[in-house]
Amino acid sequence: MTVELISVGTELLLGNIVNTNAAYLAERCAALGLSCYYQTVVGDNEKRLEEVVRLGLSRSDILILSGGLGPTKDDLTKEVTAKVFGRELIEDAHTRGRIEEYFHRVHSDQVTPNNWKQAMVPEGAKVVDNHNGTAPGLIMEEDGKTAILLPGPPNEIRPMFERDIAPYLDGLLPEGIYSKMVKICSIGESRAETMIADLMDAQTNPTIAPYAKTGEVHLRVTAKASGEEEAGELITPVIEELFRRFGDAIFTIEESVTLEEAVAGLLAEKGMTVTTAESCTAGLLAGRLMNAAGASNVYREGYITYSDEAKERLLGVSHETLMQYGAVSAQTAEEMARGAARAAGADAAVGVTGIAGPGGGTDEKPVGLVYVGCFVKGAVRTEEFHFTGNRAKNRESAVARALTLLREELLKIRD
Amino acid sequence: MTVELISVGTELLLGNIVNTNAAYLAERCAALGLSCYYQTVVGDNEKRLEEVVRLGLSRSDILILSGGLGPTKDDLTKEVTAKVFGRELIEDAHTRGRIEEYFHRVHSDQVTPNNWKQAMVPEGAKVVDNHNGTAPGLIMEEDGKTAILLPGPPNEIRPMFERDIAPYLDGLLPEGIYSKMVKICSIGESRAETMIADLMDAQTNPTIAPYAKTGEVHLRVTAKASGEEEAGELITPVIEELFRRFGDAIFTIEESVTLEEAVAGLLAEKGMTVTTAESCTAGLLAGRLMNAAGASNVYREGYITYSDEAKERLLGVSHETLMQYGAVSAQTAEEMARGAARAAGADAAVGVTGIAGPGGGTDEKPVGLVYVGCFVKGAVRTEEFHFTGNRAKNRESAVARALTLLREELLKIRD
Repeated sequence: MTVELISVGTELLLGNIVNTNAAYLAERCAALGLSCYYQTVVGDNEKRLEEVVRLGLSRSDILILSGGLGPTKDDLTKEVTAKVFGRELIEDAHTRGRIEEYFHRVHSDQVTPNNWKQAMVPEGAKVVDNHNGTAPGLIMEEDGKTAILLPGPPNEIRPMFERDIAPYLDGLLPEGIYSKMVKICSIGESRAETMIADLMDAQTNPTIAPYAKTGEVHLRVTAKASGEEEAGELITPVIEELFRRFGDAIFTIEESVTLEEAVAGLLAEKGMTVTTAESCTAGLLAGRLMNAAGASNVYREGYITYSDEAKERLLGVSHETLMQYGAVSAQTAEEMARGAARAAGADAAVGVTGIAGPGGGTDEKPVGLVYVGCFVKGAVRTEEFHFTGNRAKNRESAVARALTLLREELLKIRD
Repeated sequence: MTVELISVGTELLLGNIVNTNAAYLAERCAALGLSCYYQTVVGDNEKRLEEVVRLGLSRSDILILSGGLGPTKDDLTKEVTAKVFGRELIEDAHTRGRIEEYFHRVHSDQVTPNNWKQAMVPEGAKVVDNHNGTAPGLIMEEDGKTAILLPGPPNEIRPMFERDIAPYLDGLLPEGIYSKMVKICSIGESRAETMIADLMDAQTNPTIAPYAKTGEVHLRVTAKASGEEEAGELITPVIEELFRRFGDAIFTIEESVTLEEAVAGLLAEKGMTVTTAESCTAGLLAGRLMNAAGASNVYREGYITYSDEAKERLLGVSHETLMQYGAVSAQTAEEMARGAARAAGADAAVGVTGIAGPGGGTDEKPVGLVYVGCFVKGAVRTEEFHFTGNRAKNRESAVARALTLLREELLKIRD
């Protein structure tokens, strides 16, 4: 069964707001096993909205329209959809009562006349109460097609979807879609894809879809099945094959787990603490690691040492090293990691030093050159990277590679 | 002239990512004076993508497609658009050279065969170099219709749009659209809008459009004019009026200047250095401040002090303060700022301590409670904030408010 999302609002067309409703609805529909092939954004314009609704009904089973249900003249979603379905608008006494009550409660105020517009509903529509606003949700069914109209504000649409719309959609579905996410680091997108080209060539059900992230590749394995059990039987062998090919480079098969959470989890598992010493990334590595809510158990302090003097004083990097090899060097990265571990009394430490750009590069040490030193239990591994992005991207890449390096070194410790 | 945005990617249809590219492109196109009536999201599917491209060409002058230009078999945007335009794909030697060079530089690695796919371009297409990745942008023109194909990653599409696509689009437009961006901090969105409601009600040319960002409000002032001079005459009085209303809360009227750059600039102007002491933000404040390329002149070192012990040892926060008021308190924030300034020998310092969530909250100190202490020339101002987002959003908000507070204190120093 297919669903199509139609977001109504000129503010979306102007880029005033980001369409987070579409991402929310898309994710929830995918989780319910609905296939979504199209999302459309259209403004508060009668002719274009009608055209988009008609097109949607011609190619999808279910339309979910969000926005344009409010009290103003601009709000046309209900009027246009009712017209396409050939329904008159009639006043719904239940909704009128709710609007009155809402106004008394929230605004302790009279209802302004334009608000009564929200009590008008298409004949025969199911009315879905809005517990966080005045515009009710509406469901119209006709000839095997369904239109679901939802209010635009995130704090109204989300509770309404969870409470009433998700159960309604679930009741419509004969077959389900199930998926698992396999997340990989240490291997680039092209190489990862080359490693599974044969699987992707042969795929029908399940399918594998790769997504490139900074320093990561995500593979979504999706199966169509009649239930969880059948889905598991289809997906499990594919996951096992991916583990045979990628091994330890797979850092999680949980949708919600991030690389920093995987690294923090590994540290916690081994009962180790970590610290960071950052020059070009200047806090971004620590900041990302601490996205992991549980990281406070493994991370106590860190150092941002932008100047040479700070590298010497806070981390004990030797003056000779800085003079001989420079602040951006494998030697300095190594001493930063060692010194940070010592200063913080941590079991592991990552040092990052490099030239993020746009200035500061030379022929010998160009913009994008980054050294990462990773100290784990007495030994330091250093790696040299050459990034080619702008300042922000180079720093982001350095953080991703630093986390990956730390993870690789932690995995080498076999308890 | 009308533009239509087509975002290509199954990850958007599945809700894996939020469509920030569409918001970015919509805002930029609006600023250029292009009317956008439709945005569509479609997956990596040949048939449906072709249908969406054909529909777009039938109703809009310019299509901007983003995503689906990568090296994998899933990436079909170029192939499908070329087919609709009746063009063959041919190898572009220039792009092949750039890909080769990119791989040598970044991966110090062989180019895997699938990457050469990105050197194939539609016959007669304009090739737009990608300075942050391997897939070039492409422009095809035919019968008064234009298709612009851009890579999906935000760090590739944005610089490419700013550098090459915006000037290209500008050249297509008969009438000039000119705009200035007024960026405000210290004042929330609703209050800012209330403060200019009369201007917005009365507006025709120029217009003012507000955009809410985390901790900032941006006002885009847009004029239609025959040339730069006329545009200036229209826009200047509006900017002057905005300065009269918002005063020092305006931190820049330059499109490209960020809040961290404004703060770094202010420090440089005053010949002052700054340091940071972070608990819940754990490096994100320093990391953001150092986005400003010039910040290395004003920032030498910083401290991430997650544990109480680190707050005492590195910053000299007193044990008594931590015991009596707790790590999340105005007193601790103040001592963190003072201690960081002392330890780093800096003229200014910002201390941040709070409960980012999801755990760690109590009735007395709920999730979202953050204290910021700002030390400038001997005095400390502390502020208490209550954020209501998730962990990531609360940390981001804390960073924005910390920068704003630092800016406000720096502005008080009248030389």
